[in-house]
Amino acid sequence: MSKKPLILVTNDDGITAPGIRTLIKVMNTIGNVVVVAPDSPQSGMGHAITVNTTLHCKKETIDNGPQQEYSTSGTPADCVKLARHEILKQKPDLCVSGVNHGSNSSINVIYSGTMSAAIEAGIEGIPAIGFSLLDYNWDANFEVLEDYIKKITLSVLNNGLPQGVVLNVNLPKAETKKDIKGIKVCRQAKGNWVEEFDKRQSPSGQDYYWLTGKFVNFDNGEDTDEWALENNYVSVVPIQFDLTAHHCIQELNSWSLNG
Amino acid sequence: MSKKPLILVTNDDGITAPGIRTLIKVMNTIGNVVVVAPDSPQSGMGHAITVNTTLHCKKETIDNGPQQEYSTSGTPADCVKLARHEILKQKPDLCVSGVNHGSNSSINVIYSGTMSAAIEAGIEGIPAIGFSLLDYNWDANFEVLEDYIKKITLSVLNNGLPQGVVLNVNLPKAETKKDIKGIKVCRQAKGNWVEEFDKRQSPSGQDYYWLTGKFVNFDNGEDTDEWALENNYVSVVPIQFDLTAHHCIQELNSWSLNG
Repeated sequence: MSKKPLILVTNDDGITAPGIRTLIKVMNTIGNVVVVAPDSPQSGMGHAITVNTTLHCKKETIDNGPQQEYSTSGTPADCVKLARHEILKQKPDLCVSGVNHGSNSSINVIYSGTMSAAIEAGIEGIPAIGFSLLDYNWDANFEVLEDYIKKITLSVLNNGLPQGVVLNVNLPKAETKKDIKGIKVCRQAKGNWVEEFDKRQSPSGQDYYWLTGKFVNFDNGEDTDEWALENNYVSVVPIQFDLTAHHCIQELNSWSLNG
Repeated sequence: MSKKPLILVTNDDGITAPGIRTLIKVMNTIGNVVVVAPDSPQSGMGHAITVNTTLHCKKETIDNGPQQEYSTSGTPADCVKLARHEILKQKPDLCVSGVNHGSNSSINVIYSGTMSAAIEAGIEGIPAIGFSLLDYNWDANFEVLEDYIKKITLSVLNNGLPQGVVLNVNLPKAETKKDIKGIKVCRQAKGNWVEEFDKRQSPSGQDYYWLTGKFVNFDNGEDTDEWALENNYVSVVPIQFDLTAHHCIQELNSWSLNG
């Protein structure tokens, strides 16, 4: 790429989160950066879009960097749509989302606002990467991971991504660069949340619930994102938004649904 | 199945929507029905879950049917989690979601609350089907489609579904039974929304946006859900929540990310 690439940066933790500030810093070393991110945290929003209320968008100056920044009242997927069609009015060369405070490995990709932004970009034909860190702390150590973020981003810019595919990158928690063993291309581990609800009673006697629970990995494969993270590798999972279970079509056709 | 199956019914248009009332009516002819559905419309919620606020749940009596009903303040995915772990306290034999007012064919599966409920059930190992009708009208004709809903539901109960797969069923708009040509097992058509934003100004001079746009199918295949609906067939797409693009893993490994 001879001229500097145009890079759209978004996230789901909100425009002031340390994770996105790290991502902006790294992207500023690679291209021309435009940030369009939620004005407040949107975790757990999945692939929500705002169809029944209005969207607001505001120009922001958060630090002294060269990037342009906009905060919006929308979800991560809204941010990508708004950026593409109203703010940039052109297709960026790349969209990066994150760095999420908390991992989006295994089934968490489904609930993730970070990944929904990357998927939305992919749907629009924009190469896209979602980055997440296996550390929920607001003051997690992102700096130690900057080289990996840059390396993967440059690889995508140089190689391109097949149509219909975006990358789900999860970073292990690390204190020093030596803690990270390298990068593994992986598949999504089979796992899910074992839910519990914390049932309480309001002062007026009404029951209410807090969703809680524990993620359980029931996949022993050593080619999964969960294995990679547990073993201090950065996991890279190519994901697709054609959800068709092609291997099942023949079986369903044997059901004689028109019999 | 010798004893009556336990069927969980949910949706994203809210518990009083005509679409779910039709689904409840059909399911009452098949099994023991428990309804856990949002108390208000949740369209466009994607796979959102409620992690930062509390969930409320209320027993409801909406008609004279034999089903048990609960409304919740949550999203469709929340309803399935709450139903499984707090209300039923057991795994139902089937979860059906819908009938959505509006189709969820092609890429719309990604934004769909109806399908997120079915996917959530699938993640928990419950056979699941999402039903949607290609008609946004509140007073759409659902009655004419009841036989198809029953037939597909009984097929799933009799045959089971492979692990990791749920069904996305879209029904064409029809006035009489003769308008429908039959059932087609399909793949998800490649298509997306061409977005536009309707930009307006508030009385105080602030810009705001309404998301609008047009769905464009750019897939000419005759094995797609879009083709089926256009040709008055009921489309059945098996979908999966392992989003790994397995066909790309080899290519990504050739990038020498650890070089």
